[in-house]
Amino acid sequence: MGARARRSPFFDRAKARGACMYSIYNHMLFATSYGNPGREYDLLMNHAAIWDVGVERQVQLEGPDAMKLAQLMSPRDVSKCKIGQGFYTPILSRDGGVINDPILLKLSEDKIWLSIADSDVKLYAMGLADAMELDVVVTEPDVSPLAIQGPRAEDVVAAVFGEEIRAIRYFYFIETEIQGIPVVLQRSGWSKQGGFEIYLCDGSQGGELYDLMWAAGETLLGENWGPGTPNPIERIESGLFSWGTDFDEQNNPFECRLGKWCDLEGDHDFLAKEALLRIREQGPREQLVGLHLAGSEPLPGAVKPMQLTRKDGSEIGTLRASTWSPRLERNIALARVLTAESELGNTILAEVADGSMVEATVVDVPFV
Amino acid sequence: MGARARRSPFFDRAKARGACMYSIYNHMLFATSYGNPGREYDLLMNHAAIWDVGVERQVQLEGPDAMKLAQLMSPRDVSKCKIGQGFYTPILSRDGGVINDPILLKLSEDKIWLSIADSDVKLYAMGLADAMELDVVVTEPDVSPLAIQGPRAEDVVAAVFGEEIRAIRYFYFIETEIQGIPVVLQRSGWSKQGGFEIYLCDGSQGGELYDLMWAAGETLLGENWGPGTPNPIERIESGLFSWGTDFDEQNNPFECRLGKWCDLEGDHDFLAKEALLRIREQGPREQLVGLHLAGSEPLPGAVKPMQLTRKDGSEIGTLRASTWSPRLERNIALARVLTAESELGNTILAEVADGSMVEATVVDVPFV
Repeated sequence: MGARARRSPFFDRAKARGACMYSIYNHMLFATSYGNPGREYDLLMNHAAIWDVGVERQVQLEGPDAMKLAQLMSPRDVSKCKIGQGFYTPILSRDGGVINDPILLKLSEDKIWLSIADSDVKLYAMGLADAMELDVVVTEPDVSPLAIQGPRAEDVVAAVFGEEIRAIRYFYFIETEIQGIPVVLQRSGWSKQGGFEIYLCDGSQGGELYDLMWAAGETLLGENWGPGTPNPIERIESGLFSWGTDFDEQNNPFECRLGKWCDLEGDHDFLAKEALLRIREQGPREQLVGLHLAGSEPLPGAVKPMQLTRKDGSEIGTLRASTWSPRLERNIALARVLTAESELGNTILAEVADGSMVEATVVDVPFV
Repeated sequence: MGARARRSPFFDRAKARGACMYSIYNHMLFATSYGNPGREYDLLMNHAAIWDVGVERQVQLEGPDAMKLAQLMSPRDVSKCKIGQGFYTPILSRDGGVINDPILLKLSEDKIWLSIADSDVKLYAMGLADAMELDVVVTEPDVSPLAIQGPRAEDVVAAVFGEEIRAIRYFYFIETEIQGIPVVLQRSGWSKQGGFEIYLCDGSQGGELYDLMWAAGETLLGENWGPGTPNPIERIESGLFSWGTDFDEQNNPFECRLGKWCDLEGDHDFLAKEALLRIREQGPREQLVGLHLAGSEPLPGAVKPMQLTRKDGSEIGTLRASTWSPRLERNIALARVLTAESELGNTILAEVADGSMVEATVVDVPFV
């Protein structure tokens, strides 16, 4: 790996705890495995795990026009977001393409973070601000999230930050510090198993924060504690869609189950409004669906978009991600298919890793 | 590697030829090694090699306002670029940050490609176009470069495309096809050893194009032909700076040897003009320099930005990339240091991979 791939403030600690595979996400090394997928899944589902998600970069909008800039990109009425609250929102271009799907954190009336997926949405925000000469500074601040996820995550976080954190509601956050380390503590995280993200606000103290959280988890949970990553199995089972894998800026929100976040009736204006009204009228070309794949043995997961066809061999879409589901004991997948093929129960054919085609049935998500 | 990492149209061929290490660049898998660095360097320096550089994505600006949009982002007078010509240019935000440093290819008066380094500059261009409601469509077309580089590259390319390609001047290009495969053929490439980039314009024909070029190289050069990658040794020796490694959007052009591309005297207007005039007046804070590192044995190359200090230990910058130079038989590096420390001959200390500090002398680039 060259010097181009930036490192998280938790990189050394994650490596010391066994991180052994990396991807690159937002131009950073992203630990994606600790070598024991079964244990990592078990910790997330039944106990708690610590994830280095420093790759979740923040795009900071700061200045009098911060809210205005955020509203231009979001189909939600962001004026309804309270200070101290997070809002999941698609970020849309004028033609309705989904550029990213961050959590918007409102730190104050003139300070917003977009906690982003893997695309340089900072550049889109800068383009808008530069062209409109908005009074806002768009930066990537020195902020790196560390996640504690799983049913016992709240206990671990409470052991460090105090019992009062149990009162924090979903996506709400507090600005605080622990042992002199400034953080933003939010109930959130990329799993459906519950937990917190601790946004480290001083990259030089990453090791200290990691050690503090590690020690708390170990004391409380012993062997039922360890490192993990955003989990590729749980996220599919739970129907957590991934920008860049399942959909991207080629898609509009109505094609990728983001329609419910598009408020076209409110008074607020945003760049994509006209395009969305038009697309809603026409109906989306394709749909993001779940698939049950035939067969009772685990198939290797997709490593690239795989072909989907009708039984006559004609192409109807792509399978985006697949996994063996331990909870369902079957192979499941997320896919994009033509709207006409997206009704529940429809049976199609899906390419699998060895190139053969297996039968697949359209089902609802989340899978469990 | 998950499905998020896209694959080049040449991916399967490169893998079959021995690609064994990958990075991710513009959200794509980027083959960075074929397992024999000495041979790859030799092929590039003395013969010819074929590189899968499909990760060099094109940002296409198409429509009546294409040139206007390109000019907003470029400090050069892009009206001087002829159809069929390429222009190296920084892409600058309003505050003068270097967002990318592509080759701009002018395919027609209303069709431009920006052949980019590793950042989503498409999003910046879209932000400008969306905010200003420009009559231009910004896309990433299905175009993937394949490079033939080295002193014999021209012979290989001529064997396939005909002797007339020898007349193509540096950065100029032609739109043509070979055995039904549509391509843009440009004299360019990310080395100083000469060569061409063949921009495949139909991703479904990647294997055919690769095989065609492979066969021509093998016939002509036999054992003196093989696969390679943009070469980390040659590029440092030759002073080919790399956006994302040596500098990025935190830097202005005067800090990273791009000042000569900033035309502040012409009649053309662009977003960064005011900022550049101010920065030129104030003088840049730091400079991109070459370093000779002490010691006569090869040091391991930097895998992240390394610390640079004065002899008293105070920080003065970062070493961005380093290598053992076969041509100079010494360790060399590219670094960013405070302007006051950038004069030739200045002696400083540089951190190396094992954490120790070695003496380093500021020298001019290119090194050879």
